[in-house]
Amino acid sequence: MSHVYKRVALIGLGLIAGSMAHAMRRSGLAGEITGYARSAETRDTAREIGLVDRVCDSAADAVDGADLVVLAVPVGAMGRVAEEIAPALAPGATVTDVGSVKRAVIEAVGPWIPDGVHFIPAHPLAGTEHSGPRSGFAELFDNRWCLIVPVAGTDRAAVDRLRRLWEGMGANVDEMDPDHHDLVLAVTSHTPHLIAYTMVGVADDLRRVTDSEVIKYSAAGFRDFTRIAASDPTMWRDVFLNNKDATLEILGRFTEELFALQRAIRRGDGDELFDYFTHTRAIRRGIIEAGQDTDAPDFGRVTKQ
Amino acid sequence: MSHVYKRVALIGLGLIAGSMAHAMRRSGLAGEITGYARSAETRDTAREIGLVDRVCDSAADAVDGADLVVLAVPVGAMGRVAEEIAPALAPGATVTDVGSVKRAVIEAVGPWIPDGVHFIPAHPLAGTEHSGPRSGFAELFDNRWCLIVPVAGTDRAAVDRLRRLWEGMGANVDEMDPDHHDLVLAVTSHTPHLIAYTMVGVADDLRRVTDSEVIKYSAAGFRDFTRIAASDPTMWRDVFLNNKDATLEILGRFTEELFALQRAIRRGDGDELFDYFTHTRAIRRGIIEAGQDTDAPDFGRVTKQ
Repeated sequence: MSHVYKRVALIGLGLIAGSMAHAMRRSGLAGEITGYARSAETRDTAREIGLVDRVCDSAADAVDGADLVVLAVPVGAMGRVAEEIAPALAPGATVTDVGSVKRAVIEAVGPWIPDGVHFIPAHPLAGTEHSGPRSGFAELFDNRWCLIVPVAGTDRAAVDRLRRLWEGMGANVDEMDPDHHDLVLAVTSHTPHLIAYTMVGVADDLRRVTDSEVIKYSAAGFRDFTRIAASDPTMWRDVFLNNKDATLEILGRFTEELFALQRAIRRGDGDELFDYFTHTRAIRRGIIEAGQDTDAPDFGRVTKQ
Repeated sequence: MSHVYKRVALIGLGLIAGSMAHAMRRSGLAGEITGYARSAETRDTAREIGLVDRVCDSAADAVDGADLVVLAVPVGAMGRVAEEIAPALAPGATVTDVGSVKRAVIEAVGPWIPDGVHFIPAHPLAGTEHSGPRSGFAELFDNRWCLIVPVAGTDRAAVDRLRRLWEGMGANVDEMDPDHHDLVLAVTSHTPHLIAYTMVGVADDLRRVTDSEVIKYSAAGFRDFTRIAASDPTMWRDVFLNNKDATLEILGRFTEELFALQRAIRRGDGDELFDYFTHTRAIRRGIIEAGQDTDAPDFGRVTKQ
């Protein structure tokens, strides 16, 4: 595949940026990839493993001459990074991001973007519970969705070029309005993460059940929660602080439903429980059919040593 | 391996009983395996796929001459099945079960067990979201825990023999008191399942986010919840009705913690969120180290077509 961008600058060198570097190299999508991370340790690791072509010691150096700049830092740091790189952005360049929240990022980054530079927010819906410069891999985006959230008046050709990059990295691309994005993600990602963190915290806090019991017997359902609750704490703190309204709305609905089921348990209303549990099976079937998960019966299991 | 039991009768032919049949055959643990299921359709399927050596048309026929009888039906049906098979139990036989709740099963089944028959409750902590006679597989119990919950005065030799069967099927065995079992499982399994069912129900109910959006974008975290929430509705209805006290206790703690995090989001208290999310990572590491999950970065992902 021919290059989609001549020089891509990755600001932040964690799971998403690292996976983008691997995926761009897999398909030859970028002429050169530069990178910057705030932590000297992360930059050293990135140099050691050759994560990008050139690791720079400032964000401004990394973006110099880039025709694509990717902000891959926690949502709460986006504005500060945008301010820092703004003077170094080349005319005609595109700035994008990979943040899990879009309205707050648009408000934080937008004002810093100079005239003649395209700002095209985006969000790849892919991840693992791992973080850091060694956690990326080329297949992370394969068959996953990347949501592009263009702001009003965005140049169509610049959007289409960013689409080609994401499609080249294996993703399917949809476009979405920022507020709808934030609501959809509050349902499919942000609230589930908060709930998983909470359940794991409860288990850890319950003195009559030891941590070793929780760990040994986790395969009974809890295990999936711990995986979600092992995700990067800084990233998730910023998600909740920056998607407050939608998360609180979905949490309100969640507790309302939970109290209804709790009441059914207390009253011994088996029919209500059965009907609820039957209904939720259909969504799972939809996810399997859409190719977003596997229904292999040994899914996620560890082979015996 | 030589037979641990001469004839094992499986009452109920779903995921757990089916997997036991496969696992016993894999290691030659039983001389003969008989089976019974209430549904004629299930019995026909079991015959068609040769799930056990002999499918019987009544539970009494299946247990006739068995030295091990396994009750593998929903917790709410255990008492009725015990009443039905009691007259046909051979002296010296062991009756066990695989129910996810132990106090209620002991109270429902215990009174029907004749003198001279051992009743040894058990619970293998393994499962998938699939159910029915075709869902079992021999590896389900490999490296998973089976909790044996002996009642007072149980014959030690009979317990050790049941341990050998579970170990032969690949499981690690622990013994536990019934009330502690029910509390541990409320934490590691029952409450997480209820929460997952609830979150999936909320997503399905929210009219501004379509089902197709929920399905397409599920990889962002929601997917793991849908897998849990696709489990057998009858089994789970009975779990909640029969482990009411422990589930309600853990649910109370869960909502208390969730409200504290919700308040931190509303107030914008990033430090509290960060500290909470950092703490929960440690439990995940424990689970990986204990061999109860894999940390493969592409865990659970679907290969692109």
